[in-house]
Amino acid sequence: MSGKMKAIMKKEPGPGGTLVTVDIPKPGLTDLLVKVKATSICGTDASHIYPWDAWAQSRIKTPIIFGHEFCGEVVEVGSLCTGFKVGDYVSAESHIPCGTCWQCRNDMQHICGNLKILGVDTQGCFADYVALPQVCAWKNSKDMPHEIACILEPLGNAVYTALVEEIVGKSVVVFGCGPAGLFVTGVAKAASAGTVYTVIKHEFRRDIAKKMGADAVFNTTKDDIVGEIMKLTNGQGVDVILEMTGSQSAIDQGLQLVKKGGRFSAFGIPSDKVTIDLAKGVIFKGARILGINGRRMYNDWYKMAGLLDSGKLDPRPVITHKFPLAEFEKAFATMKSPDRKCGKIVMLP
Amino acid sequence: MSGKMKAIMKKEPGPGGTLVTVDIPKPGLTDLLVKVKATSICGTDASHIYPWDAWAQSRIKTPIIFGHEFCGEVVEVGSLCTGFKVGDYVSAESHIPCGTCWQCRNDMQHICGNLKILGVDTQGCFADYVALPQVCAWKNSKDMPHEIACILEPLGNAVYTALVEEIVGKSVVVFGCGPAGLFVTGVAKAASAGTVYTVIKHEFRRDIAKKMGADAVFNTTKDDIVGEIMKLTNGQGVDVILEMTGSQSAIDQGLQLVKKGGRFSAFGIPSDKVTIDLAKGVIFKGARILGINGRRMYNDWYKMAGLLDSGKLDPRPVITHKFPLAEFEKAFATMKSPDRKCGKIVMLP
Amino acid sequence: MSGKMKAIMKKEPGPGGTLVTVDIPKPGLTDLLVKVKATSICGTDASHIYPWDAWAQSRIKTPIIFGHEFCGEVVEVGSLCTGFKVGDYVSAESHIPCGTCWQCRNDMQHICGNLKILGVDTQGCFADYVALPQVCAWKNSKDMPHEIACILEPLGNAVYTALVEEIVGKSVVVFGCGPAGLFVTGVAKAASAGTVYTVIKHEFRRDIAKKMGADAVFNTTKDDIVGEIMKLTNGQGVDVILEMTGSQSAIDQGLQLVKKGGRFSAFGIPSDKVTIDLAKGVIFKGARILGINGRRMYNDWYKMAGLLDSGKLDPRPVITHKFPLAEFEKAFATMKSPDRKCGKIVMLP
Amino acid sequence: MSGKMKAIMKKEPGPGGTLVTVDIPKPGLTDLLVKVKATSICGTDASHIYPWDAWAQSRIKTPIIFGHEFCGEVVEVGSLCTGFKVGDYVSAESHIPCGTCWQCRNDMQHICGNLKILGVDTQGCFADYVALPQVCAWKNSKDMPHEIACILEPLGNAVYTALVEEIVGKSVVVFGCGPAGLFVTGVAKAASAGTVYTVIKHEFRRDIAKKMGADAVFNTTKDDIVGEIMKLTNGQGVDVILEMTGSQSAIDQGLQLVKKGGRFSAFGIPSDKVTIDLAKGVIFKGARILGINGRRMYNDWYKMAGLLDSGKLDPRPVITHKFPLAEFEKAFATMKSPDRKCGKIVMLP
Repeated sequence: MSGKMKAIMKKEPGPGGTLVTVDIPKPGLTDLLVKVKATSICGTDASHIYPWDAWAQSRIKTPIIFGHEFCGEVVEVGSLCTGFKVGDYVSAESHIPCGTCWQCRNDMQHICGNLKILGVDTQGCFADYVALPQVCAWKNSKDMPHEIACILEPLGNAVYTALVEEIVGKSVVVFGCGPAGLFVTGVAKAASAGTVYTVIKHEFRRDIAKKMGADAVFNTTKDDIVGEIMKLTNGQGVDVILEMTGSQSAIDQGLQLVKKGGRFSAFGIPSDKVTIDLAKGVIFKGARILGINGRRMYNDWYKMAGLLDSGKLDPRPVITHKFPLAEFEKAFATMKSPDRKCGKIVMLP
Repeated sequence: MSGKMKAIMKKEPGPGGTLVTVDIPKPGLTDLLVKVKATSICGTDASHIYPWDAWAQSRIKTPIIFGHEFCGEVVEVGSLCTGFKVGDYVSAESHIPCGTCWQCRNDMQHICGNLKILGVDTQGCFADYVALPQVCAWKNSKDMPHEIACILEPLGNAVYTALVEEIVGKSVVVFGCGPAGLFVTGVAKAASAGTVYTVIKHEFRRDIAKKMGADAVFNTTKDDIVGEIMKLTNGQGVDVILEMTGSQSAIDQGLQLVKKGGRFSAFGIPSDKVTIDLAKGVIFKGARILGINGRRMYNDWYKMAGLLDSGKLDPRPVITHKFPLAEFEKAFATMKSPDRKCGKIVMLP
Repeated sequence: MSGKMKAIMKKEPGPGGTLVTVDIPKPGLTDLLVKVKATSICGTDASHIYPWDAWAQSRIKTPIIFGHEFCGEVVEVGSLCTGFKVGDYVSAESHIPCGTCWQCRNDMQHICGNLKILGVDTQGCFADYVALPQVCAWKNSKDMPHEIACILEPLGNAVYTALVEEIVGKSVVVFGCGPAGLFVTGVAKAASAGTVYTVIKHEFRRDIAKKMGADAVFNTTKDDIVGEIMKLTNGQGVDVILEMTGSQSAIDQGLQLVKKGGRFSAFGIPSDKVTIDLAKGVIFKGARILGINGRRMYNDWYKMAGLLDSGKLDPRPVITHKFPLAEFEKAFATMKSPDRKCGKIVMLP
Repeated sequence: MSGKMKAIMKKEPGPGGTLVTVDIPKPGLTDLLVKVKATSICGTDASHIYPWDAWAQSRIKTPIIFGHEFCGEVVEVGSLCTGFKVGDYVSAESHIPCGTCWQCRNDMQHICGNLKILGVDTQGCFADYVALPQVCAWKNSKDMPHEIACILEPLGNAVYTALVEEIVGKSVVVFGCGPAGLFVTGVAKAASAGTVYTVIKHEFRRDIAKKMGADAVFNTTKDDIVGEIMKLTNGQGVDVILEMTGSQSAIDQGLQLVKKGGRFSAFGIPSDKVTIDLAKGVIFKGARILGINGRRMYNDWYKMAGLLDSGKLDPRPVITHKFPLAEFEKAFATMKSPDRKCGKIVMLP
């Protein structure tokens, strides 16, 4: 397919982005050309790439079309692709693995030793079309709403974080200010966790957490998180901590709250080193800290599909806004509004 | 506590049982004396002990009070017990482990090398009181209905069978004519399995299977089980087989239906050797057959409690009859009625 | 590279093979062209393809160069290959996965739903050159002897069979008449199993089993396998059964010998259905039968490399004969000699 | 048995201990009376209890016979004990679990919620006799040398730390100044790890590490640990970190050296909070930190026995000194000598 398309491009180093018209990309032999139906904004887009922070400056080469969360329809298929055909509806896995490193050959493609990320290291999805490596394509049923299909990548993070070990009947504390925390609350409940306590910062998200199934919601700025949850658990703490914030205080509280023998899933990225009580929080407890990066390809996608198909998981309460792609500036501004009156934000080309 | 109590006793070798009045048992130093609130009938009671089949003749020493599924209230505590107190409401684990064999010391008390079974090798629970080893006691909340509390032991079998490996989002076929099959259907759905197909023999149980969450119910005598489920799964088969019958034909069908890489949980006890296609059904598929015996002490009880407490699992549709303990003959007759118009049967002292 | 090469070809349906001169294959974009340094004969070659049995007739399309166990040097690299370069020494994984089916996307490429096998479904390695899909290439150190490098594929079967679950300090019975049983004996010992009892049929292989580390060797035709091993284990049985024969009697004995809570790795392919005591051998024991097919890609290769590199595992005692490729008829005859006075047979182009 | 025995007692709060003559303890109904054959000194004894540091002051009630590592012969058996008899040779597990808490009932007795420790919370083993709860007794073969039998408890720590996940063929860095680091080096090699790099502080222990199998030994005060090991691993880092020191710098280095997808076993107890790079060291790497406390009861003991019985593991190079119990002051002084010219120290009653 040839022709022109619209895209949001960072044309040169610096904050912001520009709506441009460019050539539709040519898919390689192992790529699919996908017409974008819906796309959503990740924290990486909103907090790093768009404002052009230090990380973005060191990692990203302009010009680039950014964005990596999307769904769409396959319109062209590279000649070496065997698993997909024109007309398939797909969502994108953003991790592009090399396939031959130690990690890829040990069931860890998601942390490939030569990992590239869509829309970070390659041209991304804030556009009408994307050339998507087949290894990154996930087939959906055609009746899945686009707004759900486009957020499967971040929802998959939540599936990995929550379900990296069995959670049936277990008590859980989620530390999570944003969509990640809200998604993971929903996943834990959908996968039959016992009681789930969700800790948030912004009041707007309290109702969303409730809708996602949180049995109780605490506010980091008002509540004595450790004291109250310890009381609710008879001083035992909880089986599972799902840490989605990266904040020093949440990590502290999580290591206090995790039960002897419990699990601490670390997903949120601290902006700096953290200080932890390794002796009391981990070693004496026989507890464990599991680093969670992305989603497993594709175990976690299959679990997610099972939860969505059975109706146990509905992520839509987290999706609070939709904008036309052309209004991306409004979308980005909403996402960084001071009181965070938003959840996940979807953009439609 | 001293005094007399009523009990159902097999006084001497032979079919049936007798309602007797005997001394209330004296609990040992590591036992609890439990006043029985409700008890239920296991297939072992109804098909082996009561009719006095070959297995019962070889294993059981009379006189014996049989029965091993029950709940009750602790009324006396042996002096070496530390985890329970008078007034606690408990359910009974029927497996009495030795605590020092290889299995016990490797997290497998449920298959202890010197295993005794309550009501089989010791005096059981079809009685007003039971002397229960503390190692077999499980504490319940006081507001759990007795009819639920008394069936936790067989429900625990279902938890083990279904959840011995993760089931979230996975497709499942249950082969199960009786309460075990109905319970495991409920557990699989409660623990967020994907589609669950339940195969039954007796029409009466179709509705119960539906109430327990089966997405589709097949009848062994009418349906082309393998053909239809293969069609529904695009020829892939299912992720998990839960085999609760022990029948040759179910085992055959299960090994045909299990997917490459899938799991076959074998719980139903065949009455004789079985013939299987090990090459096509297991080896070429890279599948596995997991022998399930009892319930893990107490991992599976904790999972079960979590599912019950959160309201995800309600076993009550399976409980179809309640009788006073004194009407045990009617209860046993109902359980073995030709068209099996019953589920689990509860008896109340 | 163009030119001619020698190869052993089955030109048309029927027993045997023919030494032919054919064009060197052209590697595809994702293939490596490998100059064969050494190749070995699998039971599939010797018992099915060469004699042209029913399975071969139904599966294999002539003309075909067969053989799938080999090592060699990369002499040409397809333009889409990224992990290998000319001059690399490689061994071949014979399973060619599709990469997009459920199995491939759940860490089970080795049992891909669309699996092709080198030298069975594609042109194989009894030749001077092979076009090997990069996904099937495993890089070796250049100082690994060719005779070891060419048998890594079958040695990998043994690694998977033995190490699919942890084996440190565990007692093991190997049932295994041929190279598979000898290899798995060595792998179990190298990976720090406790006592390993190896059961063989042909006396010639007794010494090889000893050299591979067997603590005791039993002969199927002379010894009371179950009685003697039960005596040696105080009636407990062993932790692990490694069944490499597929014979009804070995499967029977294995299920009698496996301990309560033990593991039965089923690798040997029965030629017909088998009759098993599922109740006593598996369910009451809480044991499990694990179907083993091929080797995991590439977890098992990494373990194997670790064992070889550290010097813990040396498979050379199993390699009893080497022939020039042109003498393949002698090689095949040796392998099927009535008293099996051979282990693994290597052929050199 | 009645009579008097010698023991080392801390009679009142303060440093040191006193050799006293006291009554032989009376075993309870579930205890064994064990005549001590050999005992060894733990870091807890030498660094906390003997010098009477803040931890000891807050935890320990005097008068107490301390010491918790020992072996001996059963001379009396409590009437409720079933697994041991007079004349058995046993080693002691020092963790005394309650048996009914959540941890005990989920296969985690070693981190029991109501844990007591022998010689810390109860009368210990620097004495002629010990009343040992049966749940803490491990039976040895009578031909095991006493000096080995008495150090199984700390050796079990090493087994747990090294083998909590499979280690076959994996590359390992051990950070370990004392006996724990030397033991774990031996266990890793015995259990077929690949290359093991051991990092020590005191030169005296270099040779011991070599004897235990270390492929290379680094000195914390002289070598560029991270730089050199990174070079040796082609910049990949290692699969497994075994951290036995609790030092900030070792933890830092371990998190730099652990490979993407790798494991960090945390056994050494930091004396204070530590600062870690959770983002780079754990999350981006998809790595995990596993808190190791004690040894699993008794999975790790069985693995240890398997490794010792097969001759793969010999801990004796670590045992550098033996003293009569009466010379305990000399033993404690040796253990805390400035340049640590010792390994494990054994005392004989």
